[in-house]
Amino acid sequence: MTATIIDGKARAAALREDVAGEVATLKRDHDVTPGLAVVLVGEDPASKVYVANKAKQTVAAGMVSFEHKLTEETSEAALLELVAHLNADPDVDGILVQMPLPRHIDTDRVVEAIDPAKDVDGLHPMNAGKIVLGRPGLVPCTPRGCVILAKEAIGNLAGKHAVVVGRSILVGKPVSLLLQNENCTVSMAHSRTVDLPSLCRQADILVAAVGRQEMIRGDWVKPGACVIDVGINRIPAPEKGDGKTRLVGDVAFEEAVEVAGAITPVPGGVGPMTIACLLANTVTAARLRRGLPAVDL
Amino acid sequence: MTATIIDGKARAAALREDVAGEVATLKRDHDVTPGLAVVLVGEDPASKVYVANKAKQTVAAGMVSFEHKLTEETSEAALLELVAHLNADPDVDGILVQMPLPRHIDTDRVVEAIDPAKDVDGLHPMNAGKIVLGRPGLVPCTPRGCVILAKEAIGNLAGKHAVVVGRSILVGKPVSLLLQNENCTVSMAHSRTVDLPSLCRQADILVAAVGRQEMIRGDWVKPGACVIDVGINRIPAPEKGDGKTRLVGDVAFEEAVEVAGAITPVPGGVGPMTIACLLANTVTAARLRRGLPAVDL
Repeated sequence: MTATIIDGKARAAALREDVAGEVATLKRDHDVTPGLAVVLVGEDPASKVYVANKAKQTVAAGMVSFEHKLTEETSEAALLELVAHLNADPDVDGILVQMPLPRHIDTDRVVEAIDPAKDVDGLHPMNAGKIVLGRPGLVPCTPRGCVILAKEAIGNLAGKHAVVVGRSILVGKPVSLLLQNENCTVSMAHSRTVDLPSLCRQADILVAAVGRQEMIRGDWVKPGACVIDVGINRIPAPEKGDGKTRLVGDVAFEEAVEVAGAITPVPGGVGPMTIACLLANTVTAARLRRGLPAVDL
Repeated sequence: MTATIIDGKARAAALREDVAGEVATLKRDHDVTPGLAVVLVGEDPASKVYVANKAKQTVAAGMVSFEHKLTEETSEAALLELVAHLNADPDVDGILVQMPLPRHIDTDRVVEAIDPAKDVDGLHPMNAGKIVLGRPGLVPCTPRGCVILAKEAIGNLAGKHAVVVGRSILVGKPVSLLLQNENCTVSMAHSRTVDLPSLCRQADILVAAVGRQEMIRGDWVKPGACVIDVGINRIPAPEKGDGKTRLVGDVAFEEAVEVAGAITPVPGGVGPMTIACLLANTVTAARLRRGLPAVDL
């Protein structure tokens, strides 16, 4: 058996198109153009690429992109002042402060300073709490992408046993709560789990979010399961030439693809969903802030 | 095999004593007497008994109890005004609005109006979010009582497989997150779970919080497991006389006690822990509000 490959790139493109449609509706019916402000502190090369992509896709969806690039030496006070300014700016619907921040800045303090109604990364404790309480709020982007791809592959998730490996606050914990809100039975596993392989073998939906290359082997996968691989690990690829590298996930893809019913590739699986979900969150924030009901994106 | 009966009454009494000790320390070293304000709207007889118990135990621990009894007809606006007043009152460290509220009042709005730093019930989204993010905050009382009793029975919980049956926002969801923060592998089960008995049979720690009398049978329990029964169901007890009733849990106690390693009885298990944890939260709130480090209660 060979698994269906879940095409995250295509699903993300479809979501971005839906977002663009909603942006057009907001303009036409309410004279509103959603705006996303992205704040980058310092010169981290990966962050710079990521921020540039976000800005490009924001504009492509018909929204306004505000970019704030600050030097590595920016003080926490200056960053907090900028956040306060963006909180107060009526043209800004979403605020994203690119992580990681320089060490001299308290990340938690910055995140908590963002107006929860503009927290399109879904990292503010108010938004984390709303997931627990099952209330509408802004949901973290990568976890939401995982749920969308699982639905894409197997439809209704109710009653499925989901095993989430990894309990980071960015992915593992929120994805567990979102899957529970989809009426899955959810097991949350991690480095302290006893006999992880046999727990994984119970999973109808297996979410790997540990950040360890190819840790989850083919024989940990239940035949026919849906495998969502959140890992993005860069490893040497001498076969491509001297000093070359390639990306692999947290799942041993070549093994798992023979057992699973559906699986996300790396790259091209969960990765592309993150920015698409960020754009969707910006539309949601723009609507909720104006008292308009959220639309299902 | 007959299980050890976990004595929640004794554990709660010990916790209340620890709280009283911390209250004495706060008075002596900082001239602070923690204060707990309890707000009761309406005439629900069970709520009246519960509020009276809270007030009595608050005073017994050396703290100040403020009681606010409002009529059933109180408007939401008047209740919100009282909450704002209590938020601003420096003598009030903890605010508890007794649930359920009359139907004409929006419970979520009232809970969100409470200053999260005084939310000793741990119901505010900010506090729910802090559990997800693993940050210090005020933790809901009954879930915290469950974790304390599990530790009382089996010590360190790391690596244990906990199965939580029921996903209410008052008990099931927060206890899942607290057990995960104790390094348990946690499975969250509910009415949509397929083959619940066999999932339960994997549990080293089985938490029953469904509100259905004796739903969890003895043969759902793994031999030697720790069973925490949160259910409090009142059933007819004709054997005690005409019209008499008795309390039973969500677990079929007489069956489970023969299989489990340790089990909480109903009554006398989780129940007494709730108010004791409320008092502990009030001390924590009093300390954190003044910039003092939390003490381990």
